[in-house]
Amino acid sequence: MTDVVAGIDIGGTNSPFGFVDSDGKILGKGSIRTSDYEMFEDYLAALLKEIAESANAVKDIRVIGYGIGAPNGNYYTGSIDNAPNLRWKGKILFSEMVKSKTGLPAYLTNDANAAAIGEKVFGNAKDMNDFIIVTLGTGLGSGIFCGGQLLYGSTGFAGELGHTIVVDGGRQCGCGRRGCLETYASATGIVKTVNELLGNNSYTSSLKGKENIDSKFIYDAAVAEDKLALDAFEYTGEILGKALANATAFSSPEAIFLFGGLANSGKYIFEPTIKHMEENMLNNFKGTVKVLPSGLKENTAAVLGAAALCWNEIKK
Amino acid sequence: MTDVVAGIDIGGTNSPFGFVDSDGKILGKGSIRTSDYEMFEDYLAALLKEIAESANAVKDIRVIGYGIGAPNGNYYTGSIDNAPNLRWKGKILFSEMVKSKTGLPAYLTNDANAAAIGEKVFGNAKDMNDFIIVTLGTGLGSGIFCGGQLLYGSTGFAGELGHTIVVDGGRQCGCGRRGCLETYASATGIVKTVNELLGNNSYTSSLKGKENIDSKFIYDAAVAEDKLALDAFEYTGEILGKALANATAFSSPEAIFLFGGLANSGKYIFEPTIKHMEENMLNNFKGTVKVLPSGLKENTAAVLGAAALCWNEIKK
Repeated sequence: MTDVVAGIDIGGTNSPFGFVDSDGKILGKGSIRTSDYEMFEDYLAALLKEIAESANAVKDIRVIGYGIGAPNGNYYTGSIDNAPNLRWKGKILFSEMVKSKTGLPAYLTNDANAAAIGEKVFGNAKDMNDFIIVTLGTGLGSGIFCGGQLLYGSTGFAGELGHTIVVDGGRQCGCGRRGCLETYASATGIVKTVNELLGNNSYTSSLKGKENIDSKFIYDAAVAEDKLALDAFEYTGEILGKALANATAFSSPEAIFLFGGLANSGKYIFEPTIKHMEENMLNNFKGTVKVLPSGLKENTAAVLGAAALCWNEIKK
Repeated sequence: MTDVVAGIDIGGTNSPFGFVDSDGKILGKGSIRTSDYEMFEDYLAALLKEIAESANAVKDIRVIGYGIGAPNGNYYTGSIDNAPNLRWKGKILFSEMVKSKTGLPAYLTNDANAAAIGEKVFGNAKDMNDFIIVTLGTGLGSGIFCGGQLLYGSTGFAGELGHTIVVDGGRQCGCGRRGCLETYASATGIVKTVNELLGNNSYTSSLKGKENIDSKFIYDAAVAEDKLALDAFEYTGEILGKALANATAFSSPEAIFLFGGLANSGKYIFEPTIKHMEENMLNNFKGTVKVLPSGLKENTAAVLGAAALCWNEIKK
């Protein structure tokens, strides 16, 4: 029998899960559709049933706990609080309900924190005590390790770099304020930058007249040396690099990992980010921070991160 | 016999020290002039001699360790690295030399970190795991507790909020860059703000024509309801409040303590700071952070903080 934990990645559409051993090997997996369930109770019953059936189908494993990564997840309360992209409103006491229904330990945190724990337990940060993971997806999420511990803060919501204000009176953010980092440095943010640059007639760009531009389009254009696309990456890297220089003055990480959609653009996003970060760094910190890609594969990172949370707690 | 630690506060001009018991009571004290010693070795010999003699003069105490707060102090190496306002250049391996000369444990950190540890061990943060102390003196120093630990980061220099860039291309900072928080939010920063506002002829202010304006002058003018002085506090609070809202998104502290010269201006600095912090806070954090005065008296805080560092380490 191999002990495994069920790592669950709750998304607005799907909830994939995997059975992960203490070395980070995924020994089995499954998924249910989150959006099929209007009532949380029905969702949870279906999820636990599917997990039990999937576990039975894998030879010689025993599920000893649950780790959950969720939007607006709060580690302290184990709850999902008013997640805008889930159908269940209010405060969902998720991990408590899993515990009471299964009799097993269950831990929950938000997606970016789960990614950070995944990096620490199974990825490229195994030997690091101080690092930051920045997920550049639709928004910008972050998980921060300080002195070997994930930073939760007094509320459980610490590590919201995406909602630090970096441009006074800048772009409108979904949070209701203006100028948040994620309105610039994210897959959505770079599209906004491209649209702004397209308003500038001095460019001849392959992106002109294109509909539904996304960050993959912009990447392809950059690879083809489209000046506008390259300038959009440069600007995104400038905003992100300056924010990372400020983050370094705060917690002095050994490394900052870039993860998610936009990070897959490789040198197009890494190079300007590193350049502007170094240019804006206090002397003490220059050259002390590695900016690295995540060590986890994007399609399994969320499940591994959620599982890592549970393994981490069990081993405490 | 009462066990005490010698808390030493190394300043550019003087090095006051005190013998502090485990409850934070100062049972004796003394001082030598830092600036009298061109060579570090001579300074250290004089300091340790003075400490030994002062300790002998106090009844029934036994010095069991040394805690040192110093500009540009690095906790990891126990060294003072290129402190601009000290005469000894390069890297001074301070705590190592104290250890080898006395045979007792010695710990060193920078002044703002010592203040944070002082607040945790002897001040108003005894029951807090997550808090920030901001010292508003000539510059802006900060010490940050996360999850019950002081944040040192990978380099030992974490917690440099004074050198986060808050105004792109803003005021020239002593660090060589522009727009650092401490060029606005500090005793020096508010003087710069007043001088800028004095250039605006629409004010009739008691500060017009005054030479050598300092933050105490500005405070006195504010108390007398001088509009320019009040506007200078409002602007300082705006910049500081926004920076604290961003700091909250990072570490979600339970409280932020304001300390040092400018913090003594009471409501004139606290009120605009709190107002702008709350206005610029992500919803999750609104109302979760107390902005408080330090629980330590200014004239003993540095010595108590240095002593607290040593007590904290001894009790680990």
